[in-house]
Amino acid sequence: MRAVIPYKNENAKSRLSPVLSKEEREEFVELMLEDVIKALNDAGMTTVDILTTSTEGIPKEFKGDLIVTEPGLNDSINEYLQNASEPVLIIMADLPLVTGDHIRKITSVSEDVVIVPGKGGGTNILFIRHPNEFTVKYHDCSFTSHCEITEDLDKSMHIFDSFLASTDIDEPHDIVELMLHGKGKAKEYAEKRFGSETGKGRVKISPLSKLSSFI
Amino acid sequence: MRAVIPYKNENAKSRLSPVLSKEEREEFVELMLEDVIKALNDAGMTTVDILTTSTEGIPKEFKGDLIVTEPGLNDSINEYLQNASEPVLIIMADLPLVTGDHIRKITSVSEDVVIVPGKGGGTNILFIRHPNEFTVKYHDCSFTSHCEITEDLDKSMHIFDSFLASTDIDEPHDIVELMLHGKGKAKEYAEKRFGSETGKGRVKISPLSKLSSFI
Repeated sequence: MRAVIPYKNENAKSRLSPVLSKEEREEFVELMLEDVIKALNDAGMTTVDILTTSTEGIPKEFKGDLIVTEPGLNDSINEYLQNASEPVLIIMADLPLVTGDHIRKITSVSEDVVIVPGKGGGTNILFIRHPNEFTVKYHDCSFTSHCEITEDLDKSMHIFDSFLASTDIDEPHDIVELMLHGKGKAKEYAEKRFGSETGKGRVKISPLSKLSSFI
Repeated sequence: MRAVIPYKNENAKSRLSPVLSKEEREEFVELMLEDVIKALNDAGMTTVDILTTSTEGIPKEFKGDLIVTEPGLNDSINEYLQNASEPVLIIMADLPLVTGDHIRKITSVSEDVVIVPGKGGGTNILFIRHPNEFTVKYHDCSFTSHCEITEDLDKSMHIFDSFLASTDIDEPHDIVELMLHGKGKAKEYAEKRFGSETGKGRVKISPLSKLSSFI
């Protein structure tokens, strides 16, 4: 069993640009990646690859393989899967609420394919028992695509239901979930930069240094 | 064991007003309530009360007690809890993704208090074994409040981790989750009114009758 983390550092997470500068976002995604690697290691998963287009922003302590590919998320993951001879867990790098316990549970599911949906139709984690028979299709409501691909292959499927694992940090309001429910380095980083505004509706993040809110 | 659903129909869900009219929102919240009642019944929970300020918008088939109170969510729930002599499940009416299986699991937890967080610091479901010792505090990041109240009472606590149960339908982008992951009447309603727009980011809802998107 091995894990692969698709990763982009340079100018990453443009949807967070209203609240974090380019440099801050690059620092932040590296910390989220560290949290994800820690979760994998906590679950005893030691074979971890990072699939990236550049060697920038890789944590110094990272001990796995760094696979540098051409841009194109689907092509590079599909090539990776074709060459895999053991079960593969594909996990996104922006999941700082995932814990070792989630990873253990996901990899213990007996079905052929486990899908952890992301917010808004994404796919946060995919666990594939027979990876060289599978093809991924990220973007454009990938959750639905991956369900359909699994069904077309006549494979059994489990949708893993977890608020924490389904919370990808992509938009400013997601940072609230990290501050409320996180435990790792990315949460620490967010807490240094943001306060919160409460009221009758959902909590919103606010800048620590100004009185006015920015979202 | 009994369940109580705080409910407001008249001019409900104002944050959905960019995409649904007042009349549509009132119809929609009634359907969400029906889905929640179905989940409770599917779990074998037959003692279900609705706590409301008006008798408007109650499903015809509802067989439980309708408790009409003064406005003030916290006061009315706390009065309810004070008079309860058996475990109480407080469940919000805007959780159409909750299933009977969730309810069964939540009420099987052995801890004194089970909290299902909502998006943005809310509390979607609270299961309290000794309700007359407990006080709720909704609004202003109620998830944190309910964790603190439980700790102050020296009660044991379990945070229930479920994407589906944590998805309250409060803002337009939540409707995407309902359309993707729902199964009940509220999902059917949303599918009649909305299409979806896909791309590299999260899926967004769009009006079925117009070419332009509204969020």
